[in-house]
Amino acid sequence: MSTKEAIAPAEVRGIIRQNQWLKPTSGLAHGYIQANLAVLPKDLAFEFLLFCQRNPKPCPIIDVTMPGSPVPALAAPSADLRTDIPKYRVYRNGIFTEELTDVTELWDDSMVGFLIGCSFTFEEALLKNDIPIRHIEEGCNVPMYKTTIPTVKAGRFEGPTVVSMRPMTEKDAIRAVQVTSRFPSVHGAPVHIGNPEAIGIPDLNNPDFGDKVTIREGEVPVFWACGVTPQAVAMHVKPDIMITHAPGHMFITDLKNEQFSIL
Amino acid sequence: MSTKEAIAPAEVRGIIRQNQWLKPTSGLAHGYIQANLAVLPKDLAFEFLLFCQRNPKPCPIIDVTMPGSPVPALAAPSADLRTDIPKYRVYRNGIFTEELTDVTELWDDSMVGFLIGCSFTFEEALLKNDIPIRHIEEGCNVPMYKTTIPTVKAGRFEGPTVVSMRPMTEKDAIRAVQVTSRFPSVHGAPVHIGNPEAIGIPDLNNPDFGDKVTIREGEVPVFWACGVTPQAVAMHVKPDIMITHAPGHMFITDLKNEQFSIL
Repeated sequence: MSTKEAIAPAEVRGIIRQNQWLKPTSGLAHGYIQANLAVLPKDLAFEFLLFCQRNPKPCPIIDVTMPGSPVPALAAPSADLRTDIPKYRVYRNGIFTEELTDVTELWDDSMVGFLIGCSFTFEEALLKNDIPIRHIEEGCNVPMYKTTIPTVKAGRFEGPTVVSMRPMTEKDAIRAVQVTSRFPSVHGAPVHIGNPEAIGIPDLNNPDFGDKVTIREGEVPVFWACGVTPQAVAMHVKPDIMITHAPGHMFITDLKNEQFSIL
Repeated sequence: MSTKEAIAPAEVRGIIRQNQWLKPTSGLAHGYIQANLAVLPKDLAFEFLLFCQRNPKPCPIIDVTMPGSPVPALAAPSADLRTDIPKYRVYRNGIFTEELTDVTELWDDSMVGFLIGCSFTFEEALLKNDIPIRHIEEGCNVPMYKTTIPTVKAGRFEGPTVVSMRPMTEKDAIRAVQVTSRFPSVHGAPVHIGNPEAIGIPDLNNPDFGDKVTIREGEVPVFWACGVTPQAVAMHVKPDIMITHAPGHMFITDLKNEQFSIL
């Protein structure tokens, strides 16, 4: 590992910490794991961790902070979760109240930060295998849908799985299963291929989150469990306060994508 | 799935519940996941769950009960963790105090039961691949050793990894890596092959737990992370009370081994 590669994530986080990068993080610190953030009070931490453990496809845990600490000791020991994400969203009693670039003033001794794997890692693996990704080609967000696939309940946390969709040829879909199966810590294999109605999606052209993409003749929709799921489920519990990243504005870890492949 | 296969684990648990089977569970309910048990008070549950999440090789979580509930809702919804294990061990402030066949009277509203994967599952996979297992051939317990391989700390929980050892030919060792990599939820791939001193084991003939086995000419020792690790680590924290299974006397789930293979 060259010095440049080793310091890249910390350098990027330094720029973000000084509020000099307020845009989405896609493409930054190439080759390193980026993560979704969910911050919850510690009285919900055991149940939420158990929810994630029971639902590893939508909620792959990358790191969890100890109550009160803003430091993800395993994923990025020099980082501070209160400042190192370009934009945060704050929800009070399940309602979105504000967008901030720093949440230091909101972080108290009860806060537990959960870093959850995101699709950037497996998308990099798909691209390396020459599988084109439509929403990247079209310069928009990935389309996401609520489904009828239930998550496994844990205490107060329950709700439907949210999926992201990437259209591709049937040949590429088989290769995509192989490629993404290597990365169970960042959503892993698809949860569904083909008929969207079978998982409760009435219209692919009307995603619940993100943007619509073109599906070409001869292509099949491939669905992966999505990191929006745990946020949606947690919001439903209406915690006093919950902090997340703003969509696309992820936390950049010191961990390399390849460290998370299983074979 | 035939009816006989479907009811086998529940039938076996029924016999155990009536104290009509007080022996080790190896070989019972063939093809079903058996699990280690660790029961801890709920004030330690978040940290212990996080410890397991950070150390999936020694501590692969199969199921966790909600505080106070003795029912492992995912692993065996008709079971009762207070009665369905042949023999329990009780530790108070980290010291072994009693062996019981039923822990109903000790189970209060604060208890959280953790079911952790055990090596029976991957041993079955090794045998299916014609890889002989010495301690089964010799009719004794698998040899286990404390190592210098650290676990990843989570709050109060920290300590060395305990490993189990199976000697085999070098050819079989390669196949064993492939076979057990398919089962990350039950310890997964070996943590070490070869020189025991490299992981802090001075003498293979003096295991810290279990029994010594014969190592033949041309064989290499293969080490797997062991489910004794989380118990040893938890005992070090000296909880007011901790309940475990007695060695070899496991909890039999309704989950099939093959459900836990990743590829």
